[in-house]
Amino acid sequence: MFCVTAELLVDLGARSYPIHIGVGMLGDPRRFTPFIGGSQVCIVTNETIAPLYLNAVKEALGGYAIDACVLPDGEAHKTLDTYARVIDHLVAHRHNRSTTLIALGGGVIGDITGFVAATYQRGVGLIQVPTTLLALVDSSVGGKTAVNHPQGKNLIGAFYHPRLVLADLDTLSSLPSREYLAGIAEVIKCGVIRDPQFFGWLEGNIDRLLRRDATALHHVVLTSCSIKAAVVAADEREEGVRAILNFGHTFGHAIETLTRYEYLHGEAVAIGMVMATDLSMRLGLLDRVDGRRIKSLISAFGLPVAPPGNIAAQAMRTAMGMDKKVIDGQLRLVLARGLGDAFVADQFDSSALGQTFAAHAALCDD
Amino acid sequence: MFCVTAELLVDLGARSYPIHIGVGMLGDPRRFTPFIGGSQVCIVTNETIAPLYLNAVKEALGGYAIDACVLPDGEAHKTLDTYARVIDHLVAHRHNRSTTLIALGGGVIGDITGFVAATYQRGVGLIQVPTTLLALVDSSVGGKTAVNHPQGKNLIGAFYHPRLVLADLDTLSSLPSREYLAGIAEVIKCGVIRDPQFFGWLEGNIDRLLRRDATALHHVVLTSCSIKAAVVAADEREEGVRAILNFGHTFGHAIETLTRYEYLHGEAVAIGMVMATDLSMRLGLLDRVDGRRIKSLISAFGLPVAPPGNIAAQAMRTAMGMDKKVIDGQLRLVLARGLGDAFVADQFDSSALGQTFAAHAALCDD
Repeated sequence: MFCVTAELLVDLGARSYPIHIGVGMLGDPRRFTPFIGGSQVCIVTNETIAPLYLNAVKEALGGYAIDACVLPDGEAHKTLDTYARVIDHLVAHRHNRSTTLIALGGGVIGDITGFVAATYQRGVGLIQVPTTLLALVDSSVGGKTAVNHPQGKNLIGAFYHPRLVLADLDTLSSLPSREYLAGIAEVIKCGVIRDPQFFGWLEGNIDRLLRRDATALHHVVLTSCSIKAAVVAADEREEGVRAILNFGHTFGHAIETLTRYEYLHGEAVAIGMVMATDLSMRLGLLDRVDGRRIKSLISAFGLPVAPPGNIAAQAMRTAMGMDKKVIDGQLRLVLARGLGDAFVADQFDSSALGQTFAAHAALCDD
Repeated sequence: MFCVTAELLVDLGARSYPIHIGVGMLGDPRRFTPFIGGSQVCIVTNETIAPLYLNAVKEALGGYAIDACVLPDGEAHKTLDTYARVIDHLVAHRHNRSTTLIALGGGVIGDITGFVAATYQRGVGLIQVPTTLLALVDSSVGGKTAVNHPQGKNLIGAFYHPRLVLADLDTLSSLPSREYLAGIAEVIKCGVIRDPQFFGWLEGNIDRLLRRDATALHHVVLTSCSIKAAVVAADEREEGVRAILNFGHTFGHAIETLTRYEYLHGEAVAIGMVMATDLSMRLGLLDRVDGRRIKSLISAFGLPVAPPGNIAAQAMRTAMGMDKKVIDGQLRLVLARGLGDAFVADQFDSSALGQTFAAHAALCDD
């Protein structure tokens, strides 16, 4: 069996934790047991993932008192109501403070389960087992947990770190194409914000990635997680540099909220990155060649590059005003000064933002 | 104006914060401004407290964009629904990540507001302004925030510290007698668990405390907060010694849950302390003289010393099994080895617990 495992560390002092990247890990008890404290385990997953992997994980953990909480699938369910449902499940199954939650699924499952782990009995053990590319390269790492509020994405949540991220690349084989490509958006983001060499590698490996070549995927997950782990270790609670991980996200979150999550998160981020790139060029921060490279790479994976026709620019502005990066009414956006060099801009010409809206045809009513 | 202020520090490294104890502080802007980061402030309070103190605090903070969220009064409202209502208020008033929440009220307001502050946009500023004796001496200090679940008290919450606790003793003058005495229960607890000299002082100052003598109250609040701050600094997240602060609370929480919060928290803790004292004596840990002193002091303040007649021992056992101190099915209780020497017992003769239930007449069906 092909079973090379890479191990990264998210270096956060006493709260440090490893990311194990490999294949054939989900059914292996030895992967889990060093990170489980008590005798109880609850697997939180969804209706799509449960038929694929729940039994394998359950069997691997046969020695524990184990139960599963199976949620409906989709970002529309990342709500306080679903959170309360998981809490009710834990109380009904009498989980105590020494229990361990396993988040088995994509970003939505990871975010909800993480927030439950952060707040059930003021904090219990958590293991992230991401099963989508987006979760593997982004949402399972870094300790951000949240649910959405009707008026804004991720407005309710906490910083809470898992004890382990178990990134089993086997799970990618079952991933629908649309979800796989949405994950590629966050991979591209890693290159844009921090690593021009990796960005170049992505440009040269589009075909391998489209056919999900195992070696290429291993490189993508390892590199993306390394970039994220380094940024998170430098600024755990997003008081500074960590915000660059949100490149494209302020636009993207507004699109997600306004379309009621018709787009997958990665798709909305893809559109948001195109708009942030456009704004960076208008402000003279990013040259046209690099700007075009970003948009081209996003397009090459079939990701959307413009917001939908039914969103008004004013609605976009209002929704962006609920972004968590707003400080004292001032919108802050992550922009790029060049490939691999993103930063948080709290001062920028707001007429340029209007031009960015106008340039994306559907928003011409501004 | 009589205005001697004492200042304590809860020493938690980068998360350290002061407790200011004095009078005439609520309306003084200088007390607040050093601890407010952004330009927005939301005061969370309840319908009982708002008519008494809301305007004073609002006027003191005239320079900020300020709004108030006024909740119904009572432990029955310390729920996830009320939590969601405060979150909705913050979103509707467009509070951003640099906002500051002021918890103006008793333990319920402090716990709900603290949990909102811990989780709104993954954490915003918090100032605790306790207005009951119980909140002044106990719940506002130490960073425990929570709401109740129908099956158990404080099952949903987080550790999250305020930037300041502003303990204005003036607020005690408006406190109804029943609430004042409930707070005395937590004061007595401080003596029992850590400070036999303070316990003796309380025995000698019952009359002064019953008439709310200002100097005596200052001593009580300062001493209780000092004890709590020292215990919290030694064990912030209750991995060891901090659990002694829960003396009487496992019994008390079960009584609160089973009676649907007919008792005030301090009243339930008073009963719980009598039962924990009884159990400590039965196990040969505490001599009869000290045991009687504890029960006598609780009685001297007119606090209840036995559970109500309609609670069955089995229901009590079940409810106590949901306590957060349960680890892998094993009930852990805080017991006393002597006055001033509480500890967490994870091994004890469970027949003695049955005898404690039986000895409290209403529970004789065990």
